[in-house]
Amino acid sequence: AIRDAILHILTPDRSLAGRRILVTAGPTVEPLDPVRFLSNHSSGRQGYAIAAALAVRGADVTLISGPVSISVPDGIHRISVQTTREMLAACETALPVDAAVCTAAVSDWRAKELAPGKIKKTGDGPPRLELVENPDILATLCCAAQRPRLVVGFAAETDDVLDNAQAKRLRKGCDWLVANDVRQGVFGAMRNTVSLIDDNGIQSWPEMDKTDVAEQLAQRIAAFFAHPSS
Amino acid sequence: AIRDAILHILTPDRSLAGRRILVTAGPTVEPLDPVRFLSNHSSGRQGYAIAAALAVRGADVTLISGPVSISVPDGIHRISVQTTREMLAACETALPVDAAVCTAAVSDWRAKELAPGKIKKTGDGPPRLELVENPDILATLCCAAQRPRLVVGFAAETDDVLDNAQAKRLRKGCDWLVANDVRQGVFGAMRNTVSLIDDNGIQSWPEMDKTDVAEQLAQRIAAFFAHPSS
Repeated sequence: AIRDAILHILTPDRSLAGRRILVTAGPTVEPLDPVRFLSNHSSGRQGYAIAAALAVRGADVTLISGPVSISVPDGIHRISVQTTREMLAACETALPVDAAVCTAAVSDWRAKELAPGKIKKTGDGPPRLELVENPDILATLCCAAQRPRLVVGFAAETDDVLDNAQAKRLRKGCDWLVANDVRQGVFGAMRNTVSLIDDNGIQSWPEMDKTDVAEQLAQRIAAFFAHPSS
Repeated sequence: AIRDAILHILTPDRSLAGRRILVTAGPTVEPLDPVRFLSNHSSGRQGYAIAAALAVRGADVTLISGPVSISVPDGIHRISVQTTREMLAACETALPVDAAVCTAAVSDWRAKELAPGKIKKTGDGPPRLELVENPDILATLCCAAQRPRLVVGFAAETDDVLDNAQAKRLRKGCDWLVANDVRQGVFGAMRNTVSLIDDNGIQSWPEMDKTDVAEQLAQRIAAFFAHPSS
């Protein structure tokens, strides 16, 4: 990493200069009442590393992030959100962009009603928690009038990882989908094993640091804009 | 704080030397599936500050904590847990103790069934999320055969704060109950406004730093063990 940093300083790669790129990261948090919420274990590490790798190459990065405990990489404009609906609204405000990289683990559902005060324990047993479906940020960006030229989705799966990921790519309409198997504690970890799915099929990458996944992906994004037909 | 630290070094207060004290802190986290969970916004700050204030006075502190992003105070044995049931088991293992200070914001409910794989979005709408009640750690400690001589509970309330807290104290059977109004963003904040409820009634403290709330409470606990009848 130090060697790479020195190389970057000596021979800066500005292949994404002038490109506006939206990155979503972290979990979203759906409140049930003023103290309780529904969320997931996304740490935001992979998304923040991607944002940093894009910015280093000169991209103008907007990072839309759920609550995480990592700091903002240099030179990146971060917009902090809590809920899926807030994240979608921030994404739509950020358009137009050249590319969108949707790494956030958004809550698929939220409570149908937000209780105004703390839900009390009563003698009548647990409350009935009715869920409703959240908007689909990735699919919305893919169908937007101002659709980014490149939309990259992420799929955290625990079963039938590649089958689920391929189906997700087609269903959402994104160009590339990065699939990872989250059974063995990827959330919060430093390393990741991913597969990249595009029109040409599946490319499985070896296990590597999340910063290396980010570098590889940033290089591919730079190549896409250098040779849009590839 | 620097002045206090210097005073402590010059004239150490060892009024809790030899006392074993259990402190619970942070939220508990109840998984719905391998990636999703139900939790709450407790930061653990107040509990960690209390653990530190007790340890400084010589107490042998066991801190049983849900996931938080603050580091363990010096000289404290921390046991990390996720769920309410894990926290209860750790508390029972820690007995006997002289006092228990239960600051943790435990999840009152958990999913009736833990899904073994990530729950998928289907065309049939959101999943039905059935909840069951978790064991009550504070009430269990109050009824334990090895009941600590002093049990202190915390109540985070948003409505009718003092009424709810007084009712909670009687229902659970704890000696003291510290009530705080969490409407105005106490979770994660550095300051806190609390009321202490005991047999003598309600004592409302002015707003102060959480470390000062911790100091006041530690002094009261030391006084309790010095003059048990008070």
